[in-house]
Parts: sequence; C-alpha cells; structure tokens
Amino acid sequence: MKLGQATIKDIARELNVSSSTVSRALKDYPGISDETKRKVKELADKLNYRPNAVALSLRKSKSFTIGVIIPEVVHFFFSTVISGIEEVAFANNYNVILCQTNERLDREKSSIDTMLSNQIDGLLVSYSKETTDFEHFSKLMDLEFPIVFFDRLPEISNAVNVTVNDFEGAYQAVTHLISQGYKKIVHLAGPKNLAISKKRKEGYIQALLDGGITPDESLIVECAAGTEKESFDVTIVLFDNPENRPDAIFAHHDIVAAGAMMALKSINLRIPEDVGLVGYSNWQFSSMIDPPLSTVSQPGFKIGETAITMLLEMIDKKKDYQKEPVHVVLDTELLIRKSSVRL
Amino acid sequence: MKLGQATIKDIARELNVSSSTVSRALKDYPGISDETKRKVKELADKLNYRPNAVALSLRKSKSFTIGVIIPEVVHFFFSTVISGIEEVAFANNYNVILCQTNERLDREKSSIDTMLSNQIDGLLVSYSKETTDFEHFSKLMDLEFPIVFFDRLPEISNAVNVTVNDFEGAYQAVTHLISQGYKKIVHLAGPKNLAISKKRKEGYIQALLDGGITPDESLIVECAAGTEKESFDVTIVLFDNPENRPDAIFAHHDIVAAGAMMALKSINLRIPEDVGLVGYSNWQFSSMIDPPLSTVSQPGFKIGETAITMLLEMIDKKKDYQKEPVHVVLDTELLIRKSSVRL
Repeated sequence: MKLGQATIKDIARELNVSSSTVSRALKDYPGISDETKRKVKELADKLNYRPNAVALSLRKSKSFTIGVIIPEVVHFFFSTVISGIEEVAFANNYNVILCQTNERLDREKSSIDTMLSNQIDGLLVSYSKETTDFEHFSKLMDLEFPIVFFDRLPEISNAVNVTVNDFEGAYQAVTHLISQGYKKIVHLAGPKNLAISKKRKEGYIQALLDGGITPDESLIVECAAGTEKESFDVTIVLFDNPENRPDAIFAHHDIVAAGAMMALKSINLRIPEDVGLVGYSNWQFSSMIDPPLSTVSQPGFKIGETAITMLLEMIDKKKDYQKEPVHVVLDTELLIRKSSVRL
Repeated sequence: MKLGQATIKDIARELNVSSSTVSRALKDYPGISDETKRKVKELADKLNYRPNAVALSLRKSKSFTIGVIIPEVVHFFFSTVISGIEEVAFANNYNVILCQTNERLDREKSSIDTMLSNQIDGLLVSYSKETTDFEHFSKLMDLEFPIVFFDRLPEISNAVNVTVNDFEGAYQAVTHLISQGYKKIVHLAGPKNLAISKKRKEGYIQALLDGGITPDESLIVECAAGTEKESFDVTIVLFDNPENRPDAIFAHHDIVAAGAMMALKSINLRIPEDVGLVGYSNWQFSSMIDPPLSTVSQPGFKIGETAITMLLEMIDKKKDYQKEPVHVVLDTELLIRKSSVRL
C-alpha cells in the first residue's frame, strides 16, 4: 500500500466527530454543516487521506462482483459489449453491476466511489467524453486494483486496454467510397478528445491520400454531441449549395449518419446516386432504414469477452498485466449496404 | 424482523466450518465440495436461513445507493426510464447501480443478492419475462425493504407500482387505424405472461368492438421473442396470400413493427397505401425509417422520475406506500407518422 495511510477514523478522532460524519462530509451528503465539511476536507487533504485506498484496504474477501462503467447504456455498441462481459462473468459465477456516466466526469468519479464501497473485485471502464485527467483511475492502479479499459484508450502508461482498430475501420470505409467513384467525401467527426475520433479521422485522411485525393479541412466537421439533430443541421449547411457540393459522407457513428440521411432526403438528394453514405458502429436500426446504411461493425461482444477475461486473470493473480501492459486491438468489419453502392 | 432469525454464523458454528465457507456454499461458488454445499444448504433450509434478511439486518446506515433491475439496457424505453431515475437520484445525492437480467429469472435473483450485499437503500424493478413467482420480492417487502416496480406489474398485493396505461395506448392506436379506413387489423402481440401484453391486447380488442369490427383470433399472433426476424417471418405468413389479406398491423413494440415493415416491402406491399402500421414505445429509430413509423409513446423519463421519487419517500420514511399500496398509471401518447395515414 503506497498511498492513503490516514483513515476516516484518524480524521474523526482528531476532530472529535463520528466516523460516519467524516464519511458523509467527504461525500458532500446533506445533513452535515458546511463548517464541518470544510474542517473534514481540510484535514483529509493535510493527512493525504484517500477514500479509495481505505475502501480497498477494507476488502477482506472476494465479492464475485465486477463493476462496469460506461458512458451510455442506450448506445447499441456498449450494450453488445455488456452482453460479452456478462456472458463470461456469469459463466465464472461473477455478477455484474453497471453505472452509466452520461459522458460526465463527476458521475464517473462518484460511480467509482459507489462501486468501490460496494466491494467490487475489479473494474471495466469506458471513460466519459469529459475525462481528460486520469488520476482517479491511476491512483487505483497504483494500489494494484484490477482495471481493464475498453473502447476508449486512457492516457495511462501501464493501462490494460481492449480497443478496435479504428484507423483501419475508417480507412476501409473511405477506400470503399472512393472505389464507388465518390470524390468529395465529408467526414462528420467525433469529439476531439477521444482517441477513437482521432484514429477514425486519421484513417479517413490516409484513405484519401492513398486514393489520390487531397484532404480538405473544410470537409471535416466535428459532430461532438452525436445527435441526429446536430448532423442534420451540419449536413444542410454542407450540401444546400449546389455549387461545388460534396458527394459522400463518412460519419463517426450511425446516429450521425442517420441525421445526415434525413437532411439529404429533405433537400431531395438521392442516396446512393447523388451522395454515398457510410456510418460506424452498426446500430440495430442501420439495416432497417431506407436505404439500408453501410457501416463499420465493431466486435462489441468480443471486446466485452476479451476485457473481462483479462480482468478475471488479473483478479485471480494469474497474470499481472499492469506490470507488462497489454493493448489488445480487435478488427472491425465493413458492412456494405445500399447507401454507398452506385456502381 | 419477521423472518430470517438464523445467520451464517449459526450455520458455520453448527457445522464447524468458517462463515466464508457457508456464504460461498450458499451461493454455489467454486472451490467448495458438493458434500459441504449439500450440508450447508440442508441446515440453512432447516433453520429457515434467509440470506436477504441477514444482508438487511447488517444494514447499519444509508449507502445513498439505489439499485435498478431491468430486463435489457439496450431497450430504448428502459434507457429513458433510467435517465429519469438518474436525474432525480443525482439531484438527491444518490448513486444508481444497474443490473440487467436479460429476461432471465436466475439472473434476476442473483442480481438482487448482489445488490443487497452491496447495501443498497432501495430497489427499482422491472422484472424478467421468465418471472411468474414473486416470492423473492415479497420476502424483501415483508422485511420492509423499499421496492418500487415499474412498467411490469407484479402479482403482489401490496406492491408499489408505476406503469403506463397500456390499454388506452393500444385502444388509441387501433382506433386511429380504423379511422383511416383499415378494417382487417393484425395484432402482433407480446409475451402472454406480461400484464403489459394482456392490456395492449385488451385495448386492441375493445377498439375493434367499438369500431364495429368483430375480433378475429387468427389475426392475433404472439411475437414473444420480439425480434425483427420473428415478426418478419410471421408477417410473410399472414400477408403472402393475396386472398383475404389483412390491411393493417398494430405491433406490440417498434422492433416488431420494423420487422413487419421489412416483410411487407419484400412482398411489394406499400405502406401506408396497402397496409397501415403502428408500433409501440417510440424507439429512437422509428422516426428515421421509411416511411416513418406511427407509434405509441410511453413517458419513460416520467416513469423513472415518478418511481424513484416514491422510492426516496419510502427510504426516508416519509411515506409507507407498502401499507397503503399505490399504483400510478401514466398516460401514453399516440404519435401519428406516415406509416398509418392514407386518408
């Protein structure tokens, strides 16, 4: 144990209050005065108190429970990852509890606290779009708490990661569009702070270069919110003017592609004849819309299976991946449907 | 405390094994011999040991954590309920942990055990399709553990429930189809053991009767799995023969409606000209498919808000709903889109 020597009891003794008051003050729960909260927090800082360290040191035995932290359960990709996780977990007599962050850092942090105080044996994490500092994770890893990250790659040198090859997925999608004769290809990109967005953009640019097309920054538009509404509006602006109009879109996920599709239809552009369209993630609805959407399928179930298998090995001390960090990269698959085929 | 006098320690003492062995034997974990498991379980039965009772009696203070048990996180309706729950929970400094059952009773039971051993303050439940005996819930309610059920109505006399008016939702959908001149209306129904399925079917039948149409049992087909594939196949069988063909479909949810839509297109029937179509639940994709799907929208967010607000009142002992059980029924809204409008 390298950190967190001070305990809640130490703080309580020093301030002459109960341990429960300290615990609640640290968590900003109601019913504790601001004055007490201030005193507790100041002393906690001074004593280098680490709530997670204490929670960990309290771990007496295995709980056979795995915590999973994800941005949004409704995202089809994450739901397939969860299925893969649960399949392996249940087969090994583990239970799975989920917390969603709604892409918010404060909820990510409170979810971790909740799960740790619930004595989970390990954590599988896809962090929020807001997360740019990873100390709340690396602190736990320093204490040898088992964590595996999936889909989103943290900036932690000894992290254990399972991701997909987003560069290659994007490269294949855009190469396919070029092979269908599309030349002026828009990229509706993801949020800049996510590695997956960067990789997809790099794949898009490399495919253009290899296809003899000079990338044009004005055709790369960030759709960070990822809603249909946002990409609808962006697409109208890009395509409304018949002069020098783009002829294809590679979208960073299928909801963004669907918004673009509605926008193109609303200004009477035909898909795939006038504009080719490829999405990403193969959402459940993508084969049901008209025309069916070409998309890059990620092996969600396999990501989940792989991540939890590695986590269980870490929990059972069979492997110490954090000492010899591993980054598993799984392949995507391009699903070609009607929205991008015009030859 | 009416139940569960025996503790794990009592069993351990009697059998001269450790408490941890008893705990693990009761949970069927690996590493314990079958002989020990048998002995422990026999004695536990004899002593009327209740794991949940013990977990509950160990509750010393509030954890500010709420457990939510749902069939499937990917179901769009449930994801909106979760958003409503989380909104109120976070505003009151509670955290939320989720378990999904994948519609399986064994996972429902193990999820409850996991959550109780994690010291949750209360439970929000939408039970699995497999659940027909509710003792694992009523046992907890007898111990005055706060539970609110949503969407799916359990057969427990003093349960606290939040549901939507499924009868009225279905009634409005079918009345709308009749008003558009459709006469031979198929119902692709949900699983028989769910009250929501029964209510939707009853609403369908009453709307036909009130519209002067005699219900025809051969037009009511159960799509229990709820997949596109299933409803595609069912629809082909119902519509393939041009003799005496139906002219409309009311589906018990939007995925089922989407499968039917694909089937109708595949045999060159036009929607809404030849066949009218209404779904249920207003999935995210429903406005994006072609033609956009008319559907019955359930107030998922409001269901979540209402259920957790009642649960927090029970936790804080402000209300004792289980003594004066309450059943909140929220209204649905019919969203009329192109798939059902031909006049």
